Amino acid sequence: MNPSQALPAVLEKIDADLEQSLARLFDFLRIQSISTDPAYKDQCRTAAEHVAKDLSGIGFATSIRPTAGHPIVVGKGDGASNGKSPRVLFYGHYDVQPVDPLELWETPPFAPRIATLPDGRKIIVARGACDDKGQVMTFVEACRAFKAITGQLPLPITMMIEGEEECGSNHLFGFVKDNAGELKADLALVCDTSMWDSATPMVTTSLRGLVYEEVRLTCADRDLHSGLFGGAAQNPLRVLSRILAAMHDDNGRVTIPGFYDGVKDLPPDVMADLKGLDLTPENFLADVGLKVPAGEKGRLLIEQIATRPTAEINGMIGGYTGEGAKTVIPGQATAKVSFRLVGAQDPDKIREAFRAFVCARLPADAKVEFQSFAGASAIDLPFDNPALAKTRAALAAEWGKKALTIGEGGSIPIVGDFKRVLGMDTIMVGFALDDDRVHSPNEKYDLTSFHKGTRSWARILAALAG
Amino acid sequence: MNPSQALPAVLEKIDADLEQSLARLFDFLRIQSISTDPAYKDQCRTAAEHVAKDLSGIGFATSIRPTAGHPIVVGKGDGASNGKSPRVLFYGHYDVQPVDPLELWETPPFAPRIATLPDGRKIIVARGACDDKGQVMTFVEACRAFKAITGQLPLPITMMIEGEEECGSNHLFGFVKDNAGELKADLALVCDTSMWDSATPMVTTSLRGLVYEEVRLTCADRDLHSGLFGGAAQNPLRVLSRILAAMHDDNGRVTIPGFYDGVKDLPPDVMADLKGLDLTPENFLADVGLKVPAGEKGRLLIEQIATRPTAEINGMIGGYTGEGAKTVIPGQATAKVSFRLVGAQDPDKIREAFRAFVCARLPADAKVEFQSFAGASAIDLPFDNPALAKTRAALAAEWGKKALTIGEGGSIPIVGDFKRVLGMDTIMVGFALDDDRVHSPNEKYDLTSFHKGTRSWARILAALAG
Repeated sequence: MNPSQALPAVLEKIDADLEQSLARLFDFLRIQSISTDPAYKDQCRTAAEHVAKDLSGIGFATSIRPTAGHPIVVGKGDGASNGKSPRVLFYGHYDVQPVDPLELWETPPFAPRIATLPDGRKIIVARGACDDKGQVMTFVEACRAFKAITGQLPLPITMMIEGEEECGSNHLFGFVKDNAGELKADLALVCDTSMWDSATPMVTTSLRGLVYEEVRLTCADRDLHSGLFGGAAQNPLRVLSRILAAMHDDNGRVTIPGFYDGVKDLPPDVMADLKGLDLTPENFLADVGLKVPAGEKGRLLIEQIATRPTAEINGMIGGYTGEGAKTVIPGQATAKVSFRLVGAQDPDKIREAFRAFVCARLPADAKVEFQSFAGASAIDLPFDNPALAKTRAALAAEWGKKALTIGEGGSIPIVGDFKRVLGMDTIMVGFALDDDRVHSPNEKYDLTSFHKGTRSWARILAALAG
Repeated sequence: MNPSQALPAVLEKIDADLEQSLARLFDFLRIQSISTDPAYKDQCRTAAEHVAKDLSGIGFATSIRPTAGHPIVVGKGDGASNGKSPRVLFYGHYDVQPVDPLELWETPPFAPRIATLPDGRKIIVARGACDDKGQVMTFVEACRAFKAITGQLPLPITMMIEGEEECGSNHLFGFVKDNAGELKADLALVCDTSMWDSATPMVTTSLRGLVYEEVRLTCADRDLHSGLFGGAAQNPLRVLSRILAAMHDDNGRVTIPGFYDGVKDLPPDVMADLKGLDLTPENFLADVGLKVPAGEKGRLLIEQIATRPTAEINGMIGGYTGEGAKTVIPGQATAKVSFRLVGAQDPDKIREAFRAFVCARLPADAKVEFQSFAGASAIDLPFDNPALAKTRAALAAEWGKKALTIGEGGSIPIVGDFKRVLGMDTIMVGFALDDDRVHSPNEKYDLTSFHKGTRSWARILAALAG
């Protein structure tokens, strides 16, 4: 029985076993695997052991791999081998965010419970309910149902579940590089993203890259009295303001020469989907006190935040910034400037173009130093990757609604590593919702996200296997 | 014997008594009258009593007037009354700056001594040697010499010596206002400024005014993640940079509408004097690591720092300013902006014009709050004030060189109060030199400044009396 033939029975099994699936998730959620706090080191180890044991039970050959930080769980499963099935690498993380402020939790963060929202939605409440234990378990439960019905996994699967995602994934890149042969697969799957809304599934098809620079301007070798020197001394805050103000034109476009090299418009069908979205300034910006999209004129809000490159001043300081007044002309001024990259924008070229842009605008007596804090390309899942069409069809079948393909504005460095080090694309599917309070007190995951998420993965795995 | 007839004998007396004059200055310098440190409160009182006693000895009716801070010494002398003599109000201060870092003093700061520089100049070294005890005593010693020769002061003089100049003169304005009738005179004299160089005397004829504003821009109601919101959220640092960058045009002129209303060019003879100065970027800016005057194009360096108005960004802060990188779009950004005013520029109008300039450039979602920290007009001694010509002639006679009339870039609030509250102009003459290390360790005053400064005041007083 091939995975597609088995799918109806697998979905039935998922429905029938929901109580047991939840019980297993709750066992996982009770482990206080806060990775950033050394006090929870043993609990992180416990979580890794928990995952390894669980995966062993459904046919994975598992190992707990030490790193200089928290261990990484690797599981290798062969699954049905019809010669056509790709091998997939599933990535997730067993660690969770700290829980403070603890007093804002309505119930203890590591005592998971089911609650009902005023609108009738049932939710799972606990630290990690969504990020990422709940999401990881949607995938694991789908595998378990296949194993129960068909006696094996639906296709070759490698699991890699790390324990440092919430504290920077510091040892993951080295681990992937050192174990490239073992981890290499045809496709990566990640379940750490969200749905468009509670009714609309979504595949995250791009992540913006990042270039982050610090610019330090020095004019005089000390702070000067503006009464004595004001008018004659070059003021680095004035110079820096002038340069940074010149980075955008009146239409919000970045003016740095070559900045848009490698930036393409989205395909017409994707644009049509985006135009149909109900994302409005009112429902996106109003929450944070804003009303009007401030990005490039003539671009959709969703483009501005997801698929268009940006230049932002993240911080700036110089001169006197305390209470009251001080008539100083500062000797130095510093700004942190970052660029979100898309498509084929080259981080090295963007960095050099920015530095040249600054240097070309330096007046006499202004010296500049740069420091680089990040340089990562954008990640694009090619729209013609056949796995994308299969995944979208599977999601549409489960949710009864077309699955959107959306870019995400932030960066997930490991997805770039999968592409660069292991040469594979990543399909990012997740069932988080905007109100999940990820990283905040009273984190939750909708019961529907967990249940239909598990069913979604069963459908996706069957589709990929075929 | 009128003061002019007595002058030769007075000058001889000053020469003959130099040793005793120095001994009296040294007694004054030994008093540790650090006004800003409450630990020295008694010493400030001692300094006030010292001054009062000294003034009483040369014919002043003195009183020590309490304030909520350190007391103010007032002395009233009648002097020769020929019906033509103006009454002058002399202002100075008996308090001094703190002495730290103490370890940088070559000898104890309150143990005055005479030293010789490598170029042969003899100097008085002590805290306050110049600022302002040494300078005050040039005037007092000139009065004393007149008293010795003629039996009276050369003209009616009111002395007002305060003890809080180094910590903000907080109680002086109120005192002047409350005692306006008593303090009112025809002309104020201040000895707290410097010479052009050690050979060239100078009258400070203008002080720039000051408007100081804090601008706080708010966009989102919190800091935002630039991955999620970057591109769509208004960035207050970008808005603020854009606005502040627009304050100057490419020629360094301030673009705020109406900013130059009330600004006049200097008279041709004063401009001719200024053009003849040896003030170069090398000898003014090089000391602080700069080379090129950054003010209005087409203006002399001395105009840029002294007689032209300016707009400066004194401080700016927003977003992430710590070590490393944080991908934040700040909710707020703040700048401190000040304007040095000249001529008849109206501080209220400048403040309003600046605020309107900012408000006119606010995009959607940017809100602004302003806070005002200062608003003072410039002070101009009219070039046709007859006392100015007399003072310049007296200085030229003493130094054998034309006395310059120069504007000073900073503000001395009390001089504005003399004009506004007491309706009188101020003549500022001082004998400080650029290398006096005022406010720094090893403060000094040239013996020549002290001796010829005393002789200068004798000549000025004789000229004013005539």
